[in-house]
Amino acid sequence: MKSHTKHLVFNTKARREYINITAHIERELLESGIQEGLCLVNAMHITASVYINDAESGLINDFDDFLEGLAPHEPLSNYRHNRTGEDNGDAHIKRTIMGREVVIAVTEGTLDFGPWEQIYYAEFDGRRPKKVMVKIIGE
Amino acid sequence: MKSHTKHLVFNTKARREYINITAHIERELLESGIQEGLCLVNAMHITASVYINDAESGLINDFDDFLEGLAPHEPLSNYRHNRTGEDNGDAHIKRTIMGREVVIAVTEGTLDFGPWEQIYYAEFDGRRPKKVMVKIIGE
Amino acid sequence: MKSHTKHLVFNTKARREYINITAHIERELLESGIQEGLCLVNAMHITASVYINDAESGLINDFDDFLEGLAPHEPLSNYRHNRTGEDNGDAHIKRTIMGREVVIAVTEGTLDFGPWEQIYYAEFDGRRPKKVMVKIIGE
Repeated sequence: MKSHTKHLVFNTKARREYINITAHIERELLESGIQEGLCLVNAMHITASVYINDAESGLINDFDDFLEGLAPHEPLSNYRHNRTGEDNGDAHIKRTIMGREVVIAVTEGTLDFGPWEQIYYAEFDGRRPKKVMVKIIGE
Repeated sequence: MKSHTKHLVFNTKARREYINITAHIERELLESGIQEGLCLVNAMHITASVYINDAESGLINDFDDFLEGLAPHEPLSNYRHNRTGEDNGDAHIKRTIMGREVVIAVTEGTLDFGPWEQIYYAEFDGRRPKKVMVKIIGE
Repeated sequence: MKSHTKHLVFNTKARREYINITAHIERELLESGIQEGLCLVNAMHITASVYINDAESGLINDFDDFLEGLAPHEPLSNYRHNRTGEDNGDAHIKRTIMGREVVIAVTEGTLDFGPWEQIYYAEFDGRRPKKVMVKIIGE
């Protein structure tokens, strides 16, 4: 069994940002040399997500509106977590809805995707360097 | 390490449908001959989910009501994604809530499940053939 | 390829409870002797979750408030599932929002975590023994 490990780093300009990281993951898979296996991609911080969906700007806006509707950033006093001095109580909840991780099948050396699957890093408390795990195991 | 790959295809009659696919996955596991490992099952389209929960019709109705309450199909103008000419903005959000994938432990050649775990394919924009990935790795 | 399997059991005193199980999983990883691989942790019951987030009591209260807001326990008649005689219709939905499982990278014999990642078992229908799966595969 082979394994390949990489910590990617993202530092967004905005508090919330959605970044298509598919090409990064494809590069790691190529480097791993793995033909058949599983690829885990997860946010290593607890106010960010990795998810799979469409690379369509309207949809990304829909996601952001939906999340802000369910767990608005303000008022900060909505979240007990913010009593610790943080202002990211909403970000922990937004990340939970969108998910921490994806697991992707690796077949014949490629990410075995349907027609529209793209891997996104969703940042909900950015403007600082944050890490994304890529772990591929197989043969 | 062994691996086994299968793309299942489902074509629902209704826009939204919930299908128990546990027997399909058990069949793939048997065919793989894998005794110890991990089994990934994921929707390969971005308006459908794979999730694990109870095979109980009331619960399935509860899930559907809950999803339709959070992200109603209509009015279509609620979703910027629909400005592309699509009418499935809601389906992208419903799938996100229910999740893209499950990972299941394989132990002694079986899906290592608790008493009520059943694997469901949840379709939110059906009436056309759509694929589900099964990838099993192990020994 | 090595594999390691463990069913942990939790029996909470309250209906809903959030338990940090990170040390349990670290113990299983150590026992497995696996250095590089993937670790799956999932609830084996369909009214409980395993998720990764911060060990901060305010945040845990925020999660609980959020879940109870979206899918309140009462009135029981809100859920068709409860017509079966159950009173846990809400718990199935709460578990779905928080997720069934996490998959964690194993690197150099440790859970390859970011600075704040902690593994939680979230119980939404407790007061009885319920199982959590730990499956680690790798080398």
